[in-house]
Amino acid sequence: MSALLTDLYQLTMMQAYLERGMQEPAVFELFVRKLPAQRNFMVAAGLEQALDFLESLAFTEGEIDWLEDQGGFSARLLDELRGLRFTGDVDAVPEGGVFFPDEPILRVSAPLPQAQLVESRLLNIVHLQTLIASKAARIVLAGAGRQLVDFGMRRAHGAEAALFAARAAWLAGFDGTATAEAGLRYGIPVFGTMAHSFVQAHADERAAFEAFARARPRRPVMLVDTYDTEAAVAKVIDLYPVLAADGILVGGVRLDSGDLAAHSKAVRAMLDAAGLKDVIVFASGNLDEHRIAGLLADGAPIDGFGVGTALDTSSDAPTLDAVYKLQSYAGIARRKRSEGKATWPGVKQVWRRHDARGRMAGDHVGRADEACDGDPLLQPVMRAGRRLPGLPKLGESRAHCAAQLARLPDALRGLEPAAAPYPVEISEALRALAREVDAATR
Amino acid sequence: MSALLTDLYQLTMMQAYLERGMQEPAVFELFVRKLPAQRNFMVAAGLEQALDFLESLAFTEGEIDWLEDQGGFSARLLDELRGLRFTGDVDAVPEGGVFFPDEPILRVSAPLPQAQLVESRLLNIVHLQTLIASKAARIVLAGAGRQLVDFGMRRAHGAEAALFAARAAWLAGFDGTATAEAGLRYGIPVFGTMAHSFVQAHADERAAFEAFARARPRRPVMLVDTYDTEAAVAKVIDLYPVLAADGILVGGVRLDSGDLAAHSKAVRAMLDAAGLKDVIVFASGNLDEHRIAGLLADGAPIDGFGVGTALDTSSDAPTLDAVYKLQSYAGIARRKRSEGKATWPGVKQVWRRHDARGRMAGDHVGRADEACDGDPLLQPVMRAGRRLPGLPKLGESRAHCAAQLARLPDALRGLEPAAAPYPVEISEALRALAREVDAATR
Repeated sequence: MSALLTDLYQLTMMQAYLERGMQEPAVFELFVRKLPAQRNFMVAAGLEQALDFLESLAFTEGEIDWLEDQGGFSARLLDELRGLRFTGDVDAVPEGGVFFPDEPILRVSAPLPQAQLVESRLLNIVHLQTLIASKAARIVLAGAGRQLVDFGMRRAHGAEAALFAARAAWLAGFDGTATAEAGLRYGIPVFGTMAHSFVQAHADERAAFEAFARARPRRPVMLVDTYDTEAAVAKVIDLYPVLAADGILVGGVRLDSGDLAAHSKAVRAMLDAAGLKDVIVFASGNLDEHRIAGLLADGAPIDGFGVGTALDTSSDAPTLDAVYKLQSYAGIARRKRSEGKATWPGVKQVWRRHDARGRMAGDHVGRADEACDGDPLLQPVMRAGRRLPGLPKLGESRAHCAAQLARLPDALRGLEPAAAPYPVEISEALRALAREVDAATR
Repeated sequence: MSALLTDLYQLTMMQAYLERGMQEPAVFELFVRKLPAQRNFMVAAGLEQALDFLESLAFTEGEIDWLEDQGGFSARLLDELRGLRFTGDVDAVPEGGVFFPDEPILRVSAPLPQAQLVESRLLNIVHLQTLIASKAARIVLAGAGRQLVDFGMRRAHGAEAALFAARAAWLAGFDGTATAEAGLRYGIPVFGTMAHSFVQAHADERAAFEAFARARPRRPVMLVDTYDTEAAVAKVIDLYPVLAADGILVGGVRLDSGDLAAHSKAVRAMLDAAGLKDVIVFASGNLDEHRIAGLLADGAPIDGFGVGTALDTSSDAPTLDAVYKLQSYAGIARRKRSEGKATWPGVKQVWRRHDARGRMAGDHVGRADEACDGDPLLQPVMRAGRRLPGLPKLGESRAHCAAQLARLPDALRGLEPAAAPYPVEISEALRALAREVDAATR
């Protein structure tokens, strides 16, 4: 991705920093200011792509030429950009980690112009994947072990959103995605059934099912709602022995419209009566964590769910209030005091305590040089522009996320807002630092 | 973008079509089933990128190899994919056109396997840009001629979402974007001010303003809310003659937090009292069409707005119910009848009537071979896989959109839902066709 995928003002500010000789180390932290009303916790994601971005950051001659054509950019800035590489350090909450508002999940320490330039794209990457992983985790909790597949590519916000959503959903515990490219790129399992158009293209629904099964004999899943759901299932049952005689075992049926609880019960009963207990019932169609929880509470015998638009756009909360703020420059702590948007200054760490059962019991945000009780969340991941060896692979991050979700307090596991937020305390040393910084800033 | 950016089932269905010899012409139409509750109309966008996708569609050997490794894909399918190019026709509503539910905005006519394969990515492109253009048009109506700039890259859903949002917002009437790469890629004007971090990095706010102006002397805009808004404006006023003596004219001040109506009035009064009537007041910070309309109704003297997250994610309605459905195969009309999701069959056209003042007065959706009153909305844009010459450029589409918005009935121009929806009638011939199709489908 182009290094120009940034806000123009980052380049203007770089120019001013260079002219003023302001190239001392700066520390920026990325955090979320507050939880959306519909969330009890968030799941950190996107670090791998963030580090990829930092490691590969470079301007092409074509990009430099475009900047020159815009006017107002100095030869000195353009020269600097020609050779620019990211040489800083990064500390971060590992992917799959549960976190809360005011807790930094990514810390960049680099010469000020570099640390400034990377703001827009770092936020763009980490915000999206964290948004989707946080949504997906709720669906995983609601799904209670059912198979979950990302179906959202078509209404994801562009190509990268579809790929990042597939990755973040897998990280948070989904079983796979329908997006083929995500399979190739991230090694995620890919799933697929059939579309209505396949049935429609055939004059006869039964013929469509048979054709599909013969073309795709590995446990095919038949879409049964194009015309009449139960009538279609009767055709699947009728076809079953014909296909089985040729070694093709129908894997399941997919419901995509109507009253999914009623249809799933009727369909399950039909399949069971025909002795087809191994044929699963898969459901899709405008699903989210609330509908899935409702279906399961109703006793709907559904074995798996395809979740699309609501997952890939986090449609009930399509953004997080994620920001990237200067915390320190040239060793001096900084903060903004804008109305309603003041931040805690200085380089920070987050420590987490657990109760006797290993459940999360409370976090402490303090100065990184404090000694607080608990486990520190931010870990070193990049030094001098190169990622450290031994960082977790995606599968390991997925296992970490599952372990983190198992450690959630019961009060945060529900889909409704918890009665009380998870306790995140700001240390006394950090409060004292804020007072010092305010006194020193004109 | 990879040809594998599609749902896996498209490839499975292609395989079944090939094995059955089902390569007759198919017609699919892309439309939106219903308006989000917060919208009175939609604006078509993304056609240029959709045609780019179709013209460049091709599989690489690496992608074929990956598919082969998945198992279940036949040598015949893989061979077919190796040489695959899109050879079909496309008709579409021109970009910037206003449209309503049930009205096709893109029609693909191609051999069935091709027309099926392209579904996922066509939807992915057209859904997003149409979503953002439809949101941006509301902000343009609310802005009533004020300068509007897209500030949303950091919380857009990934790289492509940021670029497409900048493009769609410009198409709908925004004045430009802060995203540099969108300027390079689409020729959109780019804008930039400064960030809080720039002020924070300096020990002294006035020194920060002066440094910024000297580095960027073309009408610099100063961000004044890092600590205390009015105190910062006093510094800008104090600096103004110092900078003017060196030929640098401060262009404006930007407010980003607090009560923007109150601050803008106070700041405007301070600037006017100092004789700085040419220094504009620019506002940003969690803005959307409702907040902009409210500020202007309050008489806030704001000359321009930066709109970020709410624009780039269409946060109040982050998805449209956009679908791509088989309407005809081998010359025979088709439709699905799924509960709550039935569609009108056959190849369609939309005709629009206007009243004496040139305002939109009602649409008619009918069979493409009917003769209906009004102007047909769908136009030929691609034949045999190549786009037709003379298609509108982005600037022309932007002018078209402005003309379309000027033709909106008054009832649809407000931000609140209209009392009655815009009239879209289904022709009697289309209703008759639906009855025929249902009778013929088992």
